[in-house]
Amino acid sequence: MRLIPILFCLLLLTYCTEEKLPEKSPPNFPTGEVPFERMVQADAAPEDWLTYSGNYFAQRHSQLTQINTDNVDQLKVAWVYQIQNSGLIETTPIVFDGLMYITEPPSTVTALDLNSGRKLWSWTPAMPRKVLNIGFPPVNRGVAVLNDKVYVGTLDAHLVALDARSGTLRWRVQVADNATGHAITAAPLAVDGKIIVGISGGEAGIRGFIDAYDAETGERLWRFWTIPGPGEEGNDTWAGESWKTGAGATWLTGSYDPQLNLLYWGIGNPGPDWNGDVRLGDNLYTCSVVALNPDNGQLQWHFQFTPHDTHDWDANQIPVLFDAPFQGKDRKLLAMANRNAFYYLLDRQTGEYLQATPYAKQTWAQKIGPSGRPVTFPNIEPTEEGVLVFPSLQGATNWFSPAYHPGAQLFFVSVREMGAYYFKTEVEYEAGQPFLGGGEQALSGDQAKGYVKAIKALSGEIAWEFDLHSPPWSGVLSTSGDLVFGSTNEGNFFALHARTGELLWDFQTGGAVRTNPMAYSFDGRQFVVVSGGNALFVFSL
Amino acid sequence: MRLIPILFCLLLLTYCTEEKLPEKSPPNFPTGEVPFERMVQADAAPEDWLTYSGNYFAQRHSQLTQINTDNVDQLKVAWVYQIQNSGLIETTPIVFDGLMYITEPPSTVTALDLNSGRKLWSWTPAMPRKVLNIGFPPVNRGVAVLNDKVYVGTLDAHLVALDARSGTLRWRVQVADNATGHAITAAPLAVDGKIIVGISGGEAGIRGFIDAYDAETGERLWRFWTIPGPGEEGNDTWAGESWKTGAGATWLTGSYDPQLNLLYWGIGNPGPDWNGDVRLGDNLYTCSVVALNPDNGQLQWHFQFTPHDTHDWDANQIPVLFDAPFQGKDRKLLAMANRNAFYYLLDRQTGEYLQATPYAKQTWAQKIGPSGRPVTFPNIEPTEEGVLVFPSLQGATNWFSPAYHPGAQLFFVSVREMGAYYFKTEVEYEAGQPFLGGGEQALSGDQAKGYVKAIKALSGEIAWEFDLHSPPWSGVLSTSGDLVFGSTNEGNFFALHARTGELLWDFQTGGAVRTNPMAYSFDGRQFVVVSGGNALFVFSL
Repeated sequence: MRLIPILFCLLLLTYCTEEKLPEKSPPNFPTGEVPFERMVQADAAPEDWLTYSGNYFAQRHSQLTQINTDNVDQLKVAWVYQIQNSGLIETTPIVFDGLMYITEPPSTVTALDLNSGRKLWSWTPAMPRKVLNIGFPPVNRGVAVLNDKVYVGTLDAHLVALDARSGTLRWRVQVADNATGHAITAAPLAVDGKIIVGISGGEAGIRGFIDAYDAETGERLWRFWTIPGPGEEGNDTWAGESWKTGAGATWLTGSYDPQLNLLYWGIGNPGPDWNGDVRLGDNLYTCSVVALNPDNGQLQWHFQFTPHDTHDWDANQIPVLFDAPFQGKDRKLLAMANRNAFYYLLDRQTGEYLQATPYAKQTWAQKIGPSGRPVTFPNIEPTEEGVLVFPSLQGATNWFSPAYHPGAQLFFVSVREMGAYYFKTEVEYEAGQPFLGGGEQALSGDQAKGYVKAIKALSGEIAWEFDLHSPPWSGVLSTSGDLVFGSTNEGNFFALHARTGELLWDFQTGGAVRTNPMAYSFDGRQFVVVSGGNALFVFSL
Repeated sequence: MRLIPILFCLLLLTYCTEEKLPEKSPPNFPTGEVPFERMVQADAAPEDWLTYSGNYFAQRHSQLTQINTDNVDQLKVAWVYQIQNSGLIETTPIVFDGLMYITEPPSTVTALDLNSGRKLWSWTPAMPRKVLNIGFPPVNRGVAVLNDKVYVGTLDAHLVALDARSGTLRWRVQVADNATGHAITAAPLAVDGKIIVGISGGEAGIRGFIDAYDAETGERLWRFWTIPGPGEEGNDTWAGESWKTGAGATWLTGSYDPQLNLLYWGIGNPGPDWNGDVRLGDNLYTCSVVALNPDNGQLQWHFQFTPHDTHDWDANQIPVLFDAPFQGKDRKLLAMANRNAFYYLLDRQTGEYLQATPYAKQTWAQKIGPSGRPVTFPNIEPTEEGVLVFPSLQGATNWFSPAYHPGAQLFFVSVREMGAYYFKTEVEYEAGQPFLGGGEQALSGDQAKGYVKAIKALSGEIAWEFDLHSPPWSGVLSTSGDLVFGSTNEGNFFALHARTGELLWDFQTGGAVRTNPMAYSFDGRQFVVVSGGNALFVFSL
C-alpha cells in the first residue's frame, strides 16, 4: 500500500522534470531502445537517425552543424563497410546508441559497431530459391526500429522482427504471396506500437495495400487497400473488374504527423502501366497521396496527382511535412516533388490542394487546374508507334529521397530531366507475370540530364540547380551546416552550399551511388554516410 | 659529313650535362614510355612505381617522405576504385606519367587516370569457359611495363602485350597449356627488351619453368626448366620419372641486378606436395632460388632452402637485393624470408650461403647447417595419421611481399605463425587434376597468430614485432618517411613507425586486405595505395 504514494511521487517527479527541460535537450531514453516517444522527439536528438527519412516529417534534414560550409572541404572517409554480396545498396542506415543498422541486398540486416565500423551481427532470411521481383531490382531500403527490435521487409514479402542487440529472430509473418509478385523493398515505419509496411509488385498487377502489424506479436492490425473494392467509394473509377489487378503499390516509406495522428503515404501507378484502355476511369487511389489514421487504417483524405496515369508516374515519392505560413495563413503543409515533374503543396490536415509548379521539363500538362487536376496536352498517350513525352517513365525524380531545410525553407531534390517514347501493347493479366501493356525508349546522351535542384518550398520557384553528369539514381541530405549532399552515377559524392548550390567538396567513391545520404553524431563527431558501388562510406572531419 | 662533329658535340654535351646532374634528379624519359633504363634508374624517380616490387632490387621501399611519422595520422582516402567483378585483389599498381595500371581478377587490365581515379580503359581477355586454377584462387598480381606497352599473364597461361595508352592488343602468345593446369598469376618482369614470366600450376604436377619473350614481337627467346631433364645436372635428384611431374612452379615475380646482369627467381615446391615417397631425392631446383643470365636463361647458381620438401614450403617468396658490409666484407646480398620460417642471406654474386635465422615459430629444423642445408628434427614427415609441424603449409610467410628499408637496414615481413597437422595419402598423376598426395589441418583460433615483423637485415634478429588479429594475407611497404604500411584480414590498413613498430595510424577499409601496398607521387602529392575487399583505396595527406 505504501508503494502507491511513492510511485505517484516518482511519476509526478518524472512529469515535472520533463516539463522543465529546455525544448532541445536530448530526452532521456533507455540505452539501446527506441520507444515511440523518442522518434516523436527525434529533432531534439540529431545525433540519432531513427527513421528512414530521419524524422516523422520525412525532411531528411540533419540539425548537426559540426560539418558546415566552412570546413566541409576537410571531410574525409572515417571508415568503410563493404557489403557481403554484390547488388544495389539503397539502404538508409538507422543509428542510435553506438550501433548502425543497415540492410544489404536482397534482405539481409547487418548491425555495425560505430566505434570500429566492424560488423556486430548479420541476419539473412531463408528465402525460396526463386523469388519474384518483377519490374525492379532486388533491393532493400532499410530497417525500422521500435523499442528493442528492428524490423525489415523481405523480398519474398515477409515482415520480420529481430532483437536489436543480438539479431535474434523475434517473429516473422507473411505479408503477401511472393508467387503473385508481391515483395517488400521499402523500409517499414514504426508508429506507436505498430509497424507500417508498404508492398511492391505494381508491375505484376497486384492490388496494393498498406499494412499495420503489432510490433510485439506480428499480428496484422489493419490493411488499407489502395484500390477500393466493390461498394467502396472510388471503386467506380475502375472499369469492369480492372480494380482487381490495378496495382497501386506502396513501395516507399511514408511520413507521419504525431499531432494530427495522420500517416501520409504515396501510392503507385495503376496496372497495366502503359495500356489504360483496360482500366478506364481515374483509377483511385493510384498516383495519389493518402492520409490514414494509423490506429485503424481509415482514410482521412486523398489527393490524386495524375488521374488515369499511363506513363508509370507513380506517386510513391516521399511526402515531406513542414509548417509554414502559406499565402498569409499558417499551414500544416505536405510537399511532394512528384514523378510527373510537378512540385505540389497540399494542406496536410485537410488534403486541400494549394499549388503545383513544374521543377523539370515536362510536355504532358498544359497546367494544373485549380483543384489540382492536371489539364493535359493532346497526344500524350502511349501508342503502338510510340509518342515522345517528358518526363520518361522513371520520372523527373524517382525512389530517392528529397530533403527539406527548415531554416532556408528550401526543398532539395535529385532530378532526372529526360523524355521517352512511350509505347502501348495488348496485355492480359497472368499471375506472377509482368503486367505492363507497353514500354518506353528513353532519350539518352545529351538529351538525358541530371540535376540537384533547390526549390523554394513555398513558391515552388527554382532557387538554384546543380548539373550532374547524367540523370541520378540517389537522393539528397540537407543539414543545418547549410550543406546539401548529393551524388552521381559516376561515383561522386559531393557537398553543395544549401543556399547557393555552390560545389564545396567532392569525393570519388569508385562506384555508382544508389543511396540517400544520412548523418549522425557519435562520440562528439558528426558523420555523413552514403554508399558507392558495393561499399558504405562513413565520412567525418 | 658535317653532321658527325655536331652529333659528337651533342653527345658530349649530353654526357657532360648528365655528369653534372645531382645523383637524384629524375632522368628525362619520353612521357608515357618506360624504357629499360628508366627502370634501372627507378630509385632516382620515386614518384613512379615501375615494377611489381617497386625497383629491380625488389625492395618495395618508397623513397617518398611527404607522408612520414609526423603526419601519417592525417592520412585520408583521396579516391577509391571498385573492381568490376568480385574476387581477390592481389594487384600491385604500376604508376607513371599520370596513369595507374592495375589488374582485376581474373585477368583484366585497367588503366586509371590519376587526376580523377576514373577508368581510362579496361581490357579483358577472351578465355575458355572452363579455366583451370588448381590449388589457388583466380587472382592476378599485376602488369609489367616496357616502353609503350604493358604486359599481363592470363589465368589461361597466355602472355599479352597491350598499348599502354589505349589498351589495344599488340600481341598474345600461349605460354603453356591451361588444360594441364598451367596458369599465370604473377606480374611479369620487363628486363632489357625481354618480358620474363613465371608459371603457376605446382599443385597440378606441371614441370615448372621461367620464360623470356621478345617485348616487341612476343617470340619466346628462352625457357629455363626449373627441373633438370635427363642428362642435365640435378636430374639425379629425382627418383625415376618423377621429374616429369615435379612442379617447381614460378608463380611470383623475381628480382634483377642490372650491374651483375643476373635475374633472381624463387622456385616452388616439388609435386606431389605431401607425398615425397614417389620423388626421392633433393628435387632440384624446387624450393630454391636460381640466378639466371637474362640474355639466354642460363643458370649461374642456385641455392636450395628446403631439400626434398614435403610441407609445401615453396621458395617463391620475393628475393630482395641490397648491398651492405656483412661480417666486415662489402657484399652484394640477396635476402629471403622463406616460407619455411627462416630468413636467409646469400651472396647474390656467387650464391654463397651466409646465414639463416628463424623469424617465426618452427618445429622442423634443429638448425641450418654451415652450407645452408637444414638439419631436420625426426618425425616431421606427413603421415596417414597426421603430424603437427610449424609452420603450416601456408608457411611463415606466403605470396605477399616483404620490404627492405635501406636507411634503417630493416627487413619487414608479414608473418603467419601457426602449425598444422600434415597428412600423407597415395596419389597418381592425372593431367589437369590436383596432384597433392596429402593435405593439412591447420591450427586455428588462439594458436594461429599474425604479425608484421622487422628483421635486422644483416643479423637476422627480430627488431620488433606488431601483433595482428589473425595470420595476414597481405604484404608490407616501407618508406623513407620511416613508415611501414601493413594490413589485416579484418580490413585494417595501418602505418607503423619503421624503427619501433609503434602504431601511428589505422583505417578500416571494410573488406579483407589482400594486396601489397605501394606508393607514388603525382602533382606534388604522395599517395599510398592498398586494396580492401573489392576496392582499391588511394590515400594522401
